[in-house]
Amino acid sequence: MHTALKLNEVISKKSKEAKLVLLNMPGPPRNRVGDENLYKDYPFFGDIQVIIFLGFGCLFSFFRLYGFGGMVFNFLTATFTIQWAILVQGYFQFSQNGYILLGVINLINAEFACAVVLISFGAVLGKTSPLQLLIMALLEVPVFCATEWFVLKYLRINDAGGSILIHLFSCYFGLGVTFVLYRPQLNKGHAKENTSYHSDILSVMGTLFLWVFWPSFNSALTFKGDDQHRAILHTFIGLCASTLTAFALSFLLNKKGKLTMADVQNVTLAGGVTVGATVDMMISPAAAYALGMAGATACMLGYKYLTPFLAQRCRIQDQCGIHNLHGLTGLISCAAGICAILWASEEVYGPSLYEIFAHRAPVADDPKLVELQQLVPGLAPGLGRTAQEQALIQAAAVGLTIGVAVMGGVFTGFILRLPFLSAPSDEFCFDDELFFYVPHDYDARLQRIRFTTEDSAE
Amino acid sequence: MHTALKLNEVISKKSKEAKLVLLNMPGPPRNRVGDENLYKDYPFFGDIQVIIFLGFGCLFSFFRLYGFGGMVFNFLTATFTIQWAILVQGYFQFSQNGYILLGVINLINAEFACAVVLISFGAVLGKTSPLQLLIMALLEVPVFCATEWFVLKYLRINDAGGSILIHLFSCYFGLGVTFVLYRPQLNKGHAKENTSYHSDILSVMGTLFLWVFWPSFNSALTFKGDDQHRAILHTFIGLCASTLTAFALSFLLNKKGKLTMADVQNVTLAGGVTVGATVDMMISPAAAYALGMAGATACMLGYKYLTPFLAQRCRIQDQCGIHNLHGLTGLISCAAGICAILWASEEVYGPSLYEIFAHRAPVADDPKLVELQQLVPGLAPGLGRTAQEQALIQAAAVGLTIGVAVMGGVFTGFILRLPFLSAPSDEFCFDDELFFYVPHDYDARLQRIRFTTEDSAE
Amino acid sequence: MHTALKLNEVISKKSKEAKLVLLNMPGPPRNRVGDENLYKDYPFFGDIQVIIFLGFGCLFSFFRLYGFGGMVFNFLTATFTIQWAILVQGYFQFSQNGYILLGVINLINAEFACAVVLISFGAVLGKTSPLQLLIMALLEVPVFCATEWFVLKYLRINDAGGSILIHLFSCYFGLGVTFVLYRPQLNKGHAKENTSYHSDILSVMGTLFLWVFWPSFNSALTFKGDDQHRAILHTFIGLCASTLTAFALSFLLNKKGKLTMADVQNVTLAGGVTVGATVDMMISPAAAYALGMAGATACMLGYKYLTPFLAQRCRIQDQCGIHNLHGLTGLISCAAGICAILWASEEVYGPSLYEIFAHRAPVADDPKLVELQQLVPGLAPGLGRTAQEQALIQAAAVGLTIGVAVMGGVFTGFILRLPFLSAPSDEFCFDDELFFYVPHDYDARLQRIRFTTEDSAE
Repeated sequence: MHTALKLNEVISKKSKEAKLVLLNMPGPPRNRVGDENLYKDYPFFGDIQVIIFLGFGCLFSFFRLYGFGGMVFNFLTATFTIQWAILVQGYFQFSQNGYILLGVINLINAEFACAVVLISFGAVLGKTSPLQLLIMALLEVPVFCATEWFVLKYLRINDAGGSILIHLFSCYFGLGVTFVLYRPQLNKGHAKENTSYHSDILSVMGTLFLWVFWPSFNSALTFKGDDQHRAILHTFIGLCASTLTAFALSFLLNKKGKLTMADVQNVTLAGGVTVGATVDMMISPAAAYALGMAGATACMLGYKYLTPFLAQRCRIQDQCGIHNLHGLTGLISCAAGICAILWASEEVYGPSLYEIFAHRAPVADDPKLVELQQLVPGLAPGLGRTAQEQALIQAAAVGLTIGVAVMGGVFTGFILRLPFLSAPSDEFCFDDELFFYVPHDYDARLQRIRFTTEDSAE
Repeated sequence: MHTALKLNEVISKKSKEAKLVLLNMPGPPRNRVGDENLYKDYPFFGDIQVIIFLGFGCLFSFFRLYGFGGMVFNFLTATFTIQWAILVQGYFQFSQNGYILLGVINLINAEFACAVVLISFGAVLGKTSPLQLLIMALLEVPVFCATEWFVLKYLRINDAGGSILIHLFSCYFGLGVTFVLYRPQLNKGHAKENTSYHSDILSVMGTLFLWVFWPSFNSALTFKGDDQHRAILHTFIGLCASTLTAFALSFLLNKKGKLTMADVQNVTLAGGVTVGATVDMMISPAAAYALGMAGATACMLGYKYLTPFLAQRCRIQDQCGIHNLHGLTGLISCAAGICAILWASEEVYGPSLYEIFAHRAPVADDPKLVELQQLVPGLAPGLGRTAQEQALIQAAAVGLTIGVAVMGGVFTGFILRLPFLSAPSDEFCFDDELFFYVPHDYDARLQRIRFTTEDSAE
Repeated sequence: MHTALKLNEVISKKSKEAKLVLLNMPGPPRNRVGDENLYKDYPFFGDIQVIIFLGFGCLFSFFRLYGFGGMVFNFLTATFTIQWAILVQGYFQFSQNGYILLGVINLINAEFACAVVLISFGAVLGKTSPLQLLIMALLEVPVFCATEWFVLKYLRINDAGGSILIHLFSCYFGLGVTFVLYRPQLNKGHAKENTSYHSDILSVMGTLFLWVFWPSFNSALTFKGDDQHRAILHTFIGLCASTLTAFALSFLLNKKGKLTMADVQNVTLAGGVTVGATVDMMISPAAAYALGMAGATACMLGYKYLTPFLAQRCRIQDQCGIHNLHGLTGLISCAAGICAILWASEEVYGPSLYEIFAHRAPVADDPKLVELQQLVPGLAPGLGRTAQEQALIQAAAVGLTIGVAVMGGVFTGFILRLPFLSAPSDEFCFDDELFFYVPHDYDARLQRIRFTTEDSAE
């Protein structure tokens, strides 16, 4: 739905936005339509703001000695990325007569691009300088926006929740970066690479912020009305399923039947990703539930077996395990999306089929379009694609996205290795002291760690 | 208002919801009414999500060594309960042709059922295994939903804020459970049953999340428009009153004139409960203020005198003092509700009287109904009850709710004592180590407690 | 926009509000207009609630041993101030036939008055007893409300974001208070006047709550529709600019190229203030961005050079540096507002010029009014001022506000020195032990501080 929605949003908003950009353009009397859209979009925007700044910020603060870094570098990177994304997305998608249109809906799009960078950040958390993070954002945003623009404008796919464009792209881009920034020493274990009682709780708060507002994240760019309602419900169901599955597996897979906080902090969220590609479609609640369970299972097994394997064997040190929470789950979501597209029929969707799958609508000169437009006023002409064609195109988009992401990530990784970007030495990874004036009790914390780790080493 | 509202909500939403459930049903063109309802309900839903997951989660993390348990078990229990409540409430109230209708409004109802279980959880916090909590939720939800359904459908009471159905039920159910799970040892005091500087702050954050969004909680299911506006304002006024009263009493009742954090964390919220039953009625702001003050006073005295008495004399160990914050205040709220009903007259409410007190509207064949319907379009026929009749029925509902809650709680308590539910031993109460892999600094915290408690024992 | 908006809001709400106040007034059938306004205002109200209680609360908890005081006294002061402001603002602005009208829009106004008191609180944080804070609120609210009423009703200025009325007033009032409460000993440095690792993180969370919801704060009282949309976007742009500038300067101005948490916690927010006075005008995004950068620069330099100077030379100990974050930035905002007013023309704004700058609309008997009203239905007659006249009046308002604030602050300061208000002694500043029962680990924290500060003294 992305492209269709975005474009007509922009048109409908033109008059209003333009005033922001064209200082010398007279303001029309208040535009009620835009007005209403504003009041429907703004609460979603607020929720996404919380996700980006508080959700990611707290979630990234789980290292005992890197709480400042996790929360503050997230703040810095997010702010920079949103601004940069407004310009780049504007150039690709939201410009008109040489002006970039700007409205709350565009801020929402920019915060999605920001989520992409923050997820990639998760792969190199604690191993990069703020300067490196800004360079990464500087490079990732254009690659992402170009991919997004091409996929949405030319391939025309269904991806309301951004499972393909947001989660898969960010994941494989991040893996590409961390692959190049490989630090062999870290595989031997690092004294500072652990959590504290409070940092674990803080991180769970981040998880809860993400959990609570994820329905807004997945539904912010769908069609208003029923589609958005479905997106909210499916996301909620998916998250419920993945949360219960995560708890169950965390208890079962641990010898002593104890919970691991890392599972609670990450695996519980898997369902939000797996429902992404089908979130506004008429898949049943049962399907959404199944997707949540599948996502949590894949994510959990990924943390247990895949992440160590990637780090030891493939030079891929995935700090937050984004490949489990965004990669594996993203792939499941894409597969589900393809099935849902193949199963979608007019019997199920009625005429609204041609709104949700805009590309399946008849082409402009097809007489069928006229009769459909009597049922669904203002239905835009489509490409007359069949379900099979669309399914192939979705698959192509997945391949393209992953390919571009990996290449972009690897390239970015090499740039980040430039000496003057002051990457922290191995010893100072996961350590706030390098980039922050730390309060007095920091040394005490440092001592305690040394002590307790020797401790546990015995 | 519950029943009336819920039912017509569901009807009006049928077409939309149904699509979610009936996969083989053609989607109608976008339904504007449902559309608008979605955008009015969704912000309330978001606020309630924060209350359930972050508000309760942080509030329950006040024990120094049970922060993981408080926040994470709240997360687990809440997620499980919401799903279970969707099904059970759906069976009792929201089903149609054998399908359970699902929409944001139903999620809100399910989160209310969830609040019930979480409040009961407060009575046994730190003394139960996650398995026991899930069993408790499994048993409490059907008892609650059946009671809710019976009271709303057959007794037809006014309880917009859920003072009777949510607060009284959850409180007495929880007391019933903790009565059966009585642990004599704990009355001698427990080394781990205390707070730390950070856990107290975290808990206050939980209080603030509840305080800030409580108006949404009390008004989410009232009639849209003026009634909802009144509910928001009355809740806000009630909370302001109880907060000031709580601070004043906390200063006055302590010898050294110092504040007790437990008062700040709990008593400040009493007003949100006491206004519950009358929140959408035309009681004056002054009445709402008085209710807030009365609630805080009762709650404060309860913590000071009643809770110790119950623990020492009545085998009722009420860990979070839910009887003070939800029981006593709930009773005050019910009494206020009965008075407000007795005082409600057409002079005060005008024709809207028969919307707010739907059961007082004339019966179907009464000519008065017709003329009223000219003033209030779409007014549903009622039961032609008098104020006195309604007052009696409210009182009956209170008695019924408490009775069922106590019996259900006691029964549940006995189930929870089944050996294979791995309840923690007395020594491991209020201790995360039993159910979580704890970080290195946990032992240090444990030492410090031992030390400081001997300390203070001297 | 304040006055115009507030008044017509109130009128449109009369029927609804009145019911809250006049218990003996029949309720009219549901008022759709008020209804819609409620659903547009309420999400903004929720955001502002978070700002006041969680944003300020966490931000003020940055002292290592004053976390309880920062968060809890903020809670107490805010709750008291809002109630007091409802009454005083009601008396000055929102009363009708001897009744104070009450609606969500009035709560928003009261929370703005509350923000004023909380900002002033920042100047004396840790040096005042709760009783002193309440007295300060008791005195500051009437002075503020009278000033607000006079400036909005008689001077008629543009100040949608409250840069003049909220930020300048609160800042200079607070400085006046702290000037009188001067404590020479504190200039020698205080063992407890420092942060801990967790208190710094908590404080950043407060900053993020403010950052995320500031657009709602600046736009809550603008005209609905385009103006509100502009206010949201300009605030967001200003915050982005000030955040990046703050990070850049914090890195550059520190010898070791390390970040100072105090900069992250405060300077990043400067942009929200500097765009305040022009937030709903058609200044370009570029101008909003420039304002954000200017604000952050002024704020940063203020913290580095001005605050120490004021403390050492001028007996003004500004605990949170409110003069940097609200005073300097407020002045910049006012200057920007005057420029924007001078540049505002019908070519740029079209007929909506006379909505945003209501005082420039033709007077009642001017024929031009009639033709304008055909373009902008319901345009109220104005004062027929020229841009120059308005600019002068804005300047006059700034002078008046600062003058009244300083006098009020100094007067309040002398009241606060009355002996029976139990101000903490120098030794017990920034110390929770004086007003709270502290948990066992507090003493350990106290020891550690003594230890680490001698430490760092060597």
